[in-house]
Amino acid sequence: MTGITIQPQRLLDDLETLRSYGRCGSGVVRPAYCEADIEARKWLAGRMREAGLEPVFDPVGNLFGLPPGDEPCLLMGSHSDSQPEGGWLDGAYGVIAALEVARASREAGGPPVAVVSFQDEEGRFTTLTGSRVWSGLMSLEEADAMTDHEGVTMAEARATMADLAGDFPAHGRFSAFVEAHIEQGPVLDQSGERIGVVEDIVGIRSERYRFEGQQNHAGTTPMRLRRDAYQGLAEFTTLLNARLAPLVTPATVWTIGHVAVHPNAPSIVPGRVDFTVQWRDGETARLDRMESVIRSTAEEVAGKRELSVSRSAYARIEPARMAPALAARIEAAARQHAEGLWRRMPSGALHDAANVAHVMPAAMLFVPSKRGISHSFEEDTAHDDLALGAQVLATAAANAG
Amino acid sequence: MTGITIQPQRLLDDLETLRSYGRCGSGVVRPAYCEADIEARKWLAGRMREAGLEPVFDPVGNLFGLPPGDEPCLLMGSHSDSQPEGGWLDGAYGVIAALEVARASREAGGPPVAVVSFQDEEGRFTTLTGSRVWSGLMSLEEADAMTDHEGVTMAEARATMADLAGDFPAHGRFSAFVEAHIEQGPVLDQSGERIGVVEDIVGIRSERYRFEGQQNHAGTTPMRLRRDAYQGLAEFTTLLNARLAPLVTPATVWTIGHVAVHPNAPSIVPGRVDFTVQWRDGETARLDRMESVIRSTAEEVAGKRELSVSRSAYARIEPARMAPALAARIEAAARQHAEGLWRRMPSGALHDAANVAHVMPAAMLFVPSKRGISHSFEEDTAHDDLALGAQVLATAAANAG
Repeated sequence: MTGITIQPQRLLDDLETLRSYGRCGSGVVRPAYCEADIEARKWLAGRMREAGLEPVFDPVGNLFGLPPGDEPCLLMGSHSDSQPEGGWLDGAYGVIAALEVARASREAGGPPVAVVSFQDEEGRFTTLTGSRVWSGLMSLEEADAMTDHEGVTMAEARATMADLAGDFPAHGRFSAFVEAHIEQGPVLDQSGERIGVVEDIVGIRSERYRFEGQQNHAGTTPMRLRRDAYQGLAEFTTLLNARLAPLVTPATVWTIGHVAVHPNAPSIVPGRVDFTVQWRDGETARLDRMESVIRSTAEEVAGKRELSVSRSAYARIEPARMAPALAARIEAAARQHAEGLWRRMPSGALHDAANVAHVMPAAMLFVPSKRGISHSFEEDTAHDDLALGAQVLATAAANAG
Repeated sequence: MTGITIQPQRLLDDLETLRSYGRCGSGVVRPAYCEADIEARKWLAGRMREAGLEPVFDPVGNLFGLPPGDEPCLLMGSHSDSQPEGGWLDGAYGVIAALEVARASREAGGPPVAVVSFQDEEGRFTTLTGSRVWSGLMSLEEADAMTDHEGVTMAEARATMADLAGDFPAHGRFSAFVEAHIEQGPVLDQSGERIGVVEDIVGIRSERYRFEGQQNHAGTTPMRLRRDAYQGLAEFTTLLNARLAPLVTPATVWTIGHVAVHPNAPSIVPGRVDFTVQWRDGETARLDRMESVIRSTAEEVAGKRELSVSRSAYARIEPARMAPALAARIEAAARQHAEGLWRRMPSGALHDAANVAHVMPAAMLFVPSKRGISHSFEEDTAHDDLALGAQVLATAAANAG
């Protein structure tokens, strides 16, 4: 097989250029379909053309760079839209690393590599919008009806890119998908390892709960007569922690991140509390068991405290297993370039690969995030790690070819 | 002595007019210094003037209606600010009942009666702010530095009333203070009695706490690495309940009524939580013991979870004994108008009378709260009970003159 050697400086230069679109301090403000996002995609299309790839925008604004020929080839990439206040590497790294691998492979006479930057991964309209539509998990009509927080529809947003839009590239054009990404968590940073080979992308469930009791005066209502909704939440939280502990793995997480106490005044026994429980795990069966414990614990606490309980806004994204043979090729490349400094791990964050995995073998590679920070202007990764990740990707591409 | 007869319809009409300021359904939204509160005070000042009283706003926004002459007279009243979501009678009843007694006494040639509506009884800045400052228990400078939950200072809030402000009326202008109030609890309603003669007001303490941990991604941050501020609060709440239970009496209460989670998003591990702990009891020694448990539990939980903990806005009001001779005069009037339908009782709610008792004899009269509900839009009292309470107050005023 042909060895492929990436050029670290070219990788970093392109990353810095991409950063300049929507730059804000050390981070970027480049949400999907904003002017900076569209300008960045036009620049990316030009860089693809310079790398011998034909740039194709699909109807939702996903940008593909297609190599010559009809044989199914490897697709690599991620997304170049950002959070409303995002870091410079979230998504961008996977796109530019793919571009560098495609260029380096062409220079080395390696296998053709296609590149993609998916649109709206960060959920302006819905979670992973661009890859979701391209993978056929949501129709274009459904997507068009989604609205952002300001009431703009997806149809209106993508109309701003209509002059660029071509067709959706067929899935059969590609043999597999590999996405490089920053970890966005602390695992590699804390362990001192440099490469993560992703085995699974966790599934996510979330439910919004409401406990309702009786709002009352905090001085004149005896403790035994209270129906305090906040106290119900505190007891639920404590019981839930104890009951989930024996069911989970070290990678399982659950979060109560949103809490609204009503009327939220120091001298009033809370009559109502709204809260969200979100849980993530790599196995559907475990997600199911957790769901059952969460629901029964909420009902038990509510019953005991004479609160009413209601649920709404249930969200569910199934876990996605990365293709074992593809992950093994990334692992082999990691062994070659970073022996002893890599690990297999799950992804606790959602990624486009979770959607693409429905239509072709998919795998992911992580590089460390300094201090585990992401979705923040402070997000960063050591330059050496960025280069190493791209080299591992290149070697995996060579082996895959 | 001159008999004083109140006019029930005039009392109810004025209560309904006051209710119209900030009305929301059957309740009111009229927190201290909001536009509805200030407009209500201006209307009250006009009604005082029509009753032959000189309206005087002091620097914190307490509104006094002073009768002509220099002789020390009886002061009656309560407060006209409301909870963020309050009932129509909490405070308002005592102010309008006082106004009606002042009018009725003047019409009957009875003793002069002064009227007061204290400001911020409901604790936007601190508990019983207006009567606390007027009674000299907190300096104006200290009060000015207090902040509400949105970070507005008391100095900023009272500046909105600066054009109305005069001096603090001297305590020596008044011989005693009597406050009528709805019970805000279930005792009279459950017993079928119509008048409560208050003997003591419980002490109250409250502290605002902050736990700070590390805000982070709810998918990629393993449970063992989290420093989740909300989880700290839940554990604190549960531990506190268990530790306070053996220290308290059936009349002791404690409440976590205000909780603010930051950034309060379902997919983010909370990095910060602000909350208020309030506790009430009739004995200073028990309040001290509870305080010690609350503080040590907060520190223990924070230490264990690697959160920082800070306290601010400590409020303390000692239990207050009502003046026996003044209470006896209210009791005599209750016997006259409601024989067999009154009782002596403690107040589990805090009232301005607890502050005023530090500078002059003070007493209180309760009327029933339907189903014991208060600090809620549902708060209500039978019209006959409202009229009876004002008549008992008037007869007590006549006897006191």
